[in-house]
Parts: sequence; C-alpha cells; structure tokens
Amino acid sequence: MRVSDLDTPMLLVDLPRMERNIHTMAEFARDAGIKLRPHIKTHKIPALAHLQLKSGASGVTVAKVGEAEVMADAGIGDILVCYPIIGMEKLERLAHLARQARITVAIDSFEAARQLSEAAGRHGVHFDLFLEVDSGLNRCGLPPGDPVVDLARQVLRLDGLEIAGVCTHAGHAIRATSPGERDGIARHEGESVVFTRDRLQAAGIRIREVSVGSTATVRVSGRVPGVTEIRPGTYIFNDYMQTTAGACSEDDCALTVLSTVVSRPSPDRAILDAGSKCLSSDFHHMTERMSGYGYIKGSRGTLVSRLSEEHGVVQLTNGDPPLTIGERVEIIPNHACAALNLWDVLHGVRNGEVESVWPVLARGKVR
Amino acid sequence: MRVSDLDTPMLLVDLPRMERNIHTMAEFARDAGIKLRPHIKTHKIPALAHLQLKSGASGVTVAKVGEAEVMADAGIGDILVCYPIIGMEKLERLAHLARQARITVAIDSFEAARQLSEAAGRHGVHFDLFLEVDSGLNRCGLPPGDPVVDLARQVLRLDGLEIAGVCTHAGHAIRATSPGERDGIARHEGESVVFTRDRLQAAGIRIREVSVGSTATVRVSGRVPGVTEIRPGTYIFNDYMQTTAGACSEDDCALTVLSTVVSRPSPDRAILDAGSKCLSSDFHHMTERMSGYGYIKGSRGTLVSRLSEEHGVVQLTNGDPPLTIGERVEIIPNHACAALNLWDVLHGVRNGEVESVWPVLARGKVR
Repeated sequence: MRVSDLDTPMLLVDLPRMERNIHTMAEFARDAGIKLRPHIKTHKIPALAHLQLKSGASGVTVAKVGEAEVMADAGIGDILVCYPIIGMEKLERLAHLARQARITVAIDSFEAARQLSEAAGRHGVHFDLFLEVDSGLNRCGLPPGDPVVDLARQVLRLDGLEIAGVCTHAGHAIRATSPGERDGIARHEGESVVFTRDRLQAAGIRIREVSVGSTATVRVSGRVPGVTEIRPGTYIFNDYMQTTAGACSEDDCALTVLSTVVSRPSPDRAILDAGSKCLSSDFHHMTERMSGYGYIKGSRGTLVSRLSEEHGVVQLTNGDPPLTIGERVEIIPNHACAALNLWDVLHGVRNGEVESVWPVLARGKVR
Repeated sequence: MRVSDLDTPMLLVDLPRMERNIHTMAEFARDAGIKLRPHIKTHKIPALAHLQLKSGASGVTVAKVGEAEVMADAGIGDILVCYPIIGMEKLERLAHLARQARITVAIDSFEAARQLSEAAGRHGVHFDLFLEVDSGLNRCGLPPGDPVVDLARQVLRLDGLEIAGVCTHAGHAIRATSPGERDGIARHEGESVVFTRDRLQAAGIRIREVSVGSTATVRVSGRVPGVTEIRPGTYIFNDYMQTTAGACSEDDCALTVLSTVVSRPSPDRAILDAGSKCLSSDFHHMTERMSGYGYIKGSRGTLVSRLSEEHGVVQLTNGDPPLTIGERVEIIPNHACAALNLWDVLHGVRNGEVESVWPVLARGKVR
C-alpha cells in the first residue's frame, strides 16, 4: 500500500530516518564508552525496542509497570522502571515481572524503597534500585549529594534491594533558549550525578551505574567523566521541539501526522483534519515566529498555530504552501512521545510505500 | 467494587452529578422550547448518549465519521456530523451510514458540498446540510450573512442534498475573562446565525434549524429568538475550565482522575501519578492563581501546576492538603473532552461504589 492510499489523519514514521537516528545514537554511546538504555515511552512499540537493542542498547527504560509488562512480554530482559512505584497492586505486578526480567526501579523516598522491599520479600524476588537526583527539572529526585547519601543509608537496612546506581533527567533542557544554556544544563546533569556517586562512594556505598537522560542533553552529559549510561527516548523519531533545542535538524524528524486540508474559510486560514487528538496539545513557544502545535514538513516555517480536538488551524502568510481543500500535508509534532500515546497504530514508510503497521502496544499504560 | 479498591490513576465519573447535569440541560432546553443535540465528543460512550436521548435530546452531534459509526451502531438514528467531510474513503463510509441513520453534515465550502453530493449520487442516499457560520471562534465557518447565502445558492444546484439549517459554535467563550464578556459572545453566537437565517429566507431559501453550540454559551445563545437547537457537550461532566468560565460550580464537576502521591522530593512539592497521559496537556490560564492542568477536588484552590506525561507536579503552599506519599486525590481535569480521549474505560461511581465500567468506544476516532 502506498501512503497516497491511506486515509487521513494517519501517523507515519519515515523508516530510513528512524533507522539512521537509532544508528547514530548507538554509535555515539559506543564512541563515548557508555551504555544506551533508550526510554521506550517515545514509541511504545516492542518491535522498535528490539531494533534499538539489536543496534547495541543494553536494555530499556520505561515509566510505568504496564509499559514494563509489554516490554517483558516481548522478550526484553533488562528493564529500568524510572518512576517511583507506590501501592500494593503495582508492586505485586512488578514482583511477578521480576521473575521474568531484571527489574531496576528509580526511587527518591524511603517509603518507595520500603514498599519495594516488602514486595520483594513476599515474592522472594530482588530489585535493583537507582536513586534519583534532581539536576534542576524540579520534578522527582532529591538534591545532589548528602540527601541521597542519607536515603541510601536508610535503604541499606532493607532486604531484597540493591542500590545499583544514581540517575537524573534534565528534561528542562528542551526549553533552553540557546545552545549555551542547553549545554550548561547538560553538563550540570552529568556532574550532579557524578558528584552524588562520589559522596556515596565516600560513605562506603558502591555505585555501579551513573545514568543520565534526555535526547537534548546526552551528547554533552554522556561525555561527563563518570557517567556510565544514557537514557534518551525522543531521538528515535525526533520532533519539532528537538529541532528548536538544536538537538536535530528537520531532516532527522521521522514522525509525522498525515493530514488533509478540510476547510479554507478565509484567505489567510486553512483548517487541517489533525487536532489535539492527533498531535497532543503540547504547546511549544520559542520566539513569536516559532510558537505553535506542529511544523508542516518541507515548508519554510509554516506552523499549526492553533488547535482544537479535531482542527489544526494554520494562519497563512505569504510564502506558505497554498493548502487548498483536499491537499495533504505531513505535520511534525511538537512532542513525539505525547503524540504517539494518542494512536493505536504507527505506519512505517519507505519510499512512499507502507512497509510496517505496528500496533502501539504500550499506548495508554498509565498504571 | 469500592473506589478505594481501584488502582490509580483511574478515570471516574460521579453518577449522581452526571445524572443531574443531564437532567438540568434537558430541562433548560424544554423550558426554552428548543431541541438539545448533545455533542458526544465529551464522553464518546454510546450508553451515555442513550441517557441523554432518554432525558429528551433529539439526536447527537459528532465530529468525525468514526464517531458517527459508533453511535449509529448503538442504535442512534439522528446524527449531526459537525465537521466538513473531505475525501473518498470517509464519504463512502458516511454514505453507508446514511442508510442506517439520518445524517446531517456541517459544511463551509462548495467543495465539501460537491463531494457529499457525488457520494449521495453513487449510493442513492441523501444528506441534510447545515451551513456553518463563524461567530468569532475563527475556526471553520463563513462570515454571517451574504457569504453563506452565496454558498447556499451554489449548493442548491447539487443533487442529493438538502439545506436543513445553519449552525455555529462560539468555543472561544471558554476563554472569556468575565461573565459579561462571555454573555456578549453567547448573544453574538445566537444573533449571527439568526441573522444568517434571515438573509437566507430573504433569498427564498427555507431554513429549518438554527443551531448553536457550547456549554459555556447555550444558556444565553439558546434564548436568542429564532434559535431552534443547542449542541453543548461538556455539560454532561463539566470541568475546571467551565467553572472558571462561570458555566458551573465545582459541585457540578462529575469527571475526575483518581491519583496517588508518589513522591515528595521537597517540602513544597508533591508528585502525582497522573500527568498529560491522564489529564491531557490542555493548559488553562485565567489569573496567576488559576493557572494549571487540573484542580484537586475538595481543595481550596490547589492546582496541578506543571505536567509531564506521567507526573503531575503540585507546588504546595500553606492551606494545601498534606499530600503524603500514598495519599489519593481526585483531580478535576481542565478539559473533560480531551481527558476522555486518553482513556479506554470510564468508571461510574455512586456512594463510593463502582456501578458501571464503560469502554470509551469512540476514543481515538480521528477519521
């Protein structure tokens, strides 16, 4: 089947671009002498995780137990759940998974460690732990250094757990307004976990892995001496935000939403059949000229300027494509991970031909 | 099963509140002497559409052919597709549906009418048309008055179509910053379609229905003399945006995401296990104090201040709930329709007991 035979809106991935992205990041990690543990929240598809593993990834990263289950069921044996797992039902599921795969969990509280330890005890299994450091995103994670050492000392008293590493994620780098600011955030990402590892080792606590995240930062943070692992996710597809963050070019963006112009109610306005149910409502604001909900592939800067659930509104100026009713365009989403979560199926395309139709098996796994 | 037995995050609807919302809007329409044709994009569940019909709705509104198929398959016989349907595949599906249900389509271009007419001819069916007027949202729709008359004259030459009405949707009312501004938008919503109907009738074109939309506006626009039909959607659940628009109170908000506190990395920050994959990333900004991604039910103004896909970040100040790790809260989403589209199942709750488990059958129907 040709792309031209597909109805719209439809989610497409350009396979040659995706394969190049997978290869480039694997090369980078090999060259830097560090492990690559891609975050699969970007694609949510076991077949793509296997492509990443084949190209050299050492395991995968997930956020939720449901994502771990999908990946373990697809035969993936080394899974980092980079999220505090709280509550009996999820811990029971995770303990069962720990028989099937090697499970590491990122925590930032004694309470999370205590619950994991009890689940490990109930089921006679074992969990590796990453202690999460906040390197400036202000989400999960303890401040670098002593707060993590204090938590580690408490955790050491618990059974069924082994402190395997420290981790952080400088997700705020995507909002940096200059390459200098971005690289500063990335350096601090790496240094904050290496510093924390040093304080842990000084306290006699051996640390195996020092793990950093984020497509926008790993090329700098992955080179900080002492870092042993990177966990980028978006790089497999890239997206409009990554281009404005300078992490890739438009030619590296593999994921698009194929869309049709359905209305031209005024000379300066075109309505596309892809809205927030296709692209997500993740808004991106850089400059006035670079603010919107997605980028028309191959245009010279044409953005989806407003969104509602089923409408993408393009405010047209001179130099934009004509966008007559019935015309089809591809939209590069702002945020690939958020867009993927809205779709049941991803179409893999090579030379205009649909080569793969992948169900997004880990879509909507919020538990 | 009790709500306390459910894992989190989970999507809940308070059944008594929802039933009251359904009843109140039906009463309003009866009292105003107009038809109620609820937009089912809010709930996407045939069972709830049937509750609305039982309480007096005359039919339903949908945005996409896929939503119309789900509703027609559930036995609903009168469906307005309030969206321009462009392209062979969707028109073929729509023509088949037209044998099963009475289908009305909203259009704002001759091209859309032409494609519908051809599909009607191929299949020997008939479509009713609403001509869409732009009453200020600046999305689809022609300016009120003469541009619509011009389109109507062209459409009259086509076979298989009947111009049944005019419609508009003043969705921008949700962003109004005062009740006065909102009611002004609502009055204009009603007046712009009544004015357009008058121009059409003056040109000898009979118009049966004059239809307006939006939970935030119908109490005013539905009372404009000449309006015959309202198409609110959100009212069945309401949401945080509707409370700030003055369309309802917190006690009218029936939809919540049950969520657990999973991290307390600093005294002023709590992390909930519900992020943009549960709530949508629809941001709402009213005042500094009323900006965020969702409202903690029963709190005194505590909002989810930041979101990522799996994290809801609550910035705590004095007077907020304690939010210790493991504590559960219910979050009222900003935008019910966008939140529903992320979930496979909705749990109906009465007195703490789960009474219904509805699959969200029209979720993700973007085509």
